[in-house]
Amino acid sequence: MSATHSAEQSERPGRIMSGEMAEQPAVLRRILERGAPLIHETARRIAARAPRFVLLTARGSSDNAALYAKYLLEIQLGLPCGLTSMSTTTAYGARPDLRDVLVITVSQSGGSPDLVASTRAAREAGAITLAVTNNPDSPLAAVSEFHVDVLAGPEKALPATKTYTASLLALYLFVAGLRGEDGAAARALPDPAEQVLARQDEIRRLASRYRFAERMVITSRGYGYPTAKEAALKLMETSYIPALSYSGADLLHGPLAMVDNISPVIAVVPDGKGGEALQPVLDRLRGRGADLVVVGPAAQVEAASGGFVLPTEGVPEELQPILEILPLQLLAYEVTIARGQDPDAPRALAKVTETH
Amino acid sequence: MSATHSAEQSERPGRIMSGEMAEQPAVLRRILERGAPLIHETARRIAARAPRFVLLTARGSSDNAALYAKYLLEIQLGLPCGLTSMSTTTAYGARPDLRDVLVITVSQSGGSPDLVASTRAAREAGAITLAVTNNPDSPLAAVSEFHVDVLAGPEKALPATKTYTASLLALYLFVAGLRGEDGAAARALPDPAEQVLARQDEIRRLASRYRFAERMVITSRGYGYPTAKEAALKLMETSYIPALSYSGADLLHGPLAMVDNISPVIAVVPDGKGGEALQPVLDRLRGRGADLVVVGPAAQVEAASGGFVLPTEGVPEELQPILEILPLQLLAYEVTIARGQDPDAPRALAKVTETH
Repeated sequence: MSATHSAEQSERPGRIMSGEMAEQPAVLRRILERGAPLIHETARRIAARAPRFVLLTARGSSDNAALYAKYLLEIQLGLPCGLTSMSTTTAYGARPDLRDVLVITVSQSGGSPDLVASTRAAREAGAITLAVTNNPDSPLAAVSEFHVDVLAGPEKALPATKTYTASLLALYLFVAGLRGEDGAAARALPDPAEQVLARQDEIRRLASRYRFAERMVITSRGYGYPTAKEAALKLMETSYIPALSYSGADLLHGPLAMVDNISPVIAVVPDGKGGEALQPVLDRLRGRGADLVVVGPAAQVEAASGGFVLPTEGVPEELQPILEILPLQLLAYEVTIARGQDPDAPRALAKVTETH
Repeated sequence: MSATHSAEQSERPGRIMSGEMAEQPAVLRRILERGAPLIHETARRIAARAPRFVLLTARGSSDNAALYAKYLLEIQLGLPCGLTSMSTTTAYGARPDLRDVLVITVSQSGGSPDLVASTRAAREAGAITLAVTNNPDSPLAAVSEFHVDVLAGPEKALPATKTYTASLLALYLFVAGLRGEDGAAARALPDPAEQVLARQDEIRRLASRYRFAERMVITSRGYGYPTAKEAALKLMETSYIPALSYSGADLLHGPLAMVDNISPVIAVVPDGKGGEALQPVLDRLRGRGADLVVVGPAAQVEAASGGFVLPTEGVPEELQPILEILPLQLLAYEVTIARGQDPDAPRALAKVTETH
């Protein structure tokens, strides 16, 4: 490789995002090795307080990580959950009664003023407060009673990638800890994560079909639904393609009218009950002749127009979201490169969004 | 008018949706006169059970009505709320502990099997269950402990219009009842609703700017956010334009990158705290030269590229959503007609969606 070529490489668009995506297996290993004991200790102390309800507060990619935690908490712990409508507190001054309520605020930077204000208000209203951030020195960590560090290291590209998967794993270990378990199943993740990231050429070929897309629809169900939402956000904030995400059931309640020959569909098909529940939607989409690309099991990919076979052997359904998003991050990256844009620096966005 | 012209009129596309939109002031009056006493009695009985947490369950337009109720319950009653992720129950068999939890299921038809199953499971898990439907003889009303009839009369067009505003008003009166109030402020609604619906020519002119739109972004904040979501759904299911809805704060966390000269933005600006919280987002959009159309106060419309001035004198912010959606329903209708499609019968949709 010539020196010139190397210099070009180091300035190529998307090199920061690309580097951060590649770090993900190492970040997962770091959380499993260094983070898990502290997360379990935090979970043990919160479990002792016996919360009866959970409210999750977040924005952007962290909101999708929070939604993943909502599925875990409802399914594995039977805890009713809600996602916070932040303006009820910050704009309208609502002061709900939050005794017995665990408020989990997820934020990569821990710096957004509205999240800090909303978490402070929750703590004053009697809630048990937990911040899940990538910065233990952040204002959010400071106002929360408990803190979980997702240990992803500095994230510089504007689209969140490694902080997203790190937040999912930290939340998984936390929920396992609430149940008094160690979440050892997660140790199966780093190797297949590495395998997925090594298949970038496959993704580059898939990306070519979206280079000229005017819109996209991404669907899933159950544990895969947060992946669909995060993939849509990633595609929008990097490539600017309007990507609409729906749970399979919601898709049938209206937006299906929009799916036609010019709206390609990506379905995230969990290998498990979420995938089974999605089956009627997949059949309906195929019946309409939709361009359907599947991220999921081999049989589902074969029955579709194309796709990416996810290596999920030994990975339970509730951990698959940490793998599912990887090819879709790569897809957002490759589509953006194909469209001549820079995934590292989407126009108009700042890394810490100062919403009030 | 000749007989031929009249016959044409009676078969024109969208005549069913058009007729149902026009019924809305009469439906609102019916609820205020005939529905309110029963709704208050139901609310009184539920308030006596002192729920501590509310879960709202719905899909499609009813999900947007449920979100409106979430704002009311959190702001006016300080009750923490969540929106149900239905698959946790129907696909994964979660059986959360729902003592002290009020589960409100909103469904126009009351017939969707997953809503019935999820509500039945909630009741078995100890929840107080309330169904809000347009059909007191529906399976959903039958499995719920309490029922509120939204009294909208049969709805035949596929896009929900009068059942949406009827659900909002019924939920408003219910929440007022939980607080021991009569919700008399709602009596101010039918007259301005009539005035808005009489201004269809204004909307037809607005619609011309979206005839060739490839995508749209709709934003709001606080009480207006459910309106933004419902307007996006209405536009998608009638005109098939991909319409993305975001709370103003979420828009700044990613999707703003997608707003440019080819993505027109509609902002629903509540006259009140939601509108104030939206102001920085409006300034940012204007700074980017976005095509911004406002539904809201005159001063906001004048500062935008265009818009629709909403008559909200004497209507408190929390009731404005019942008016805000009306011009946007008309807009979905007019854009669809302008694109040569039939708003009554979007392809691929059935009125009662049988999701499981």
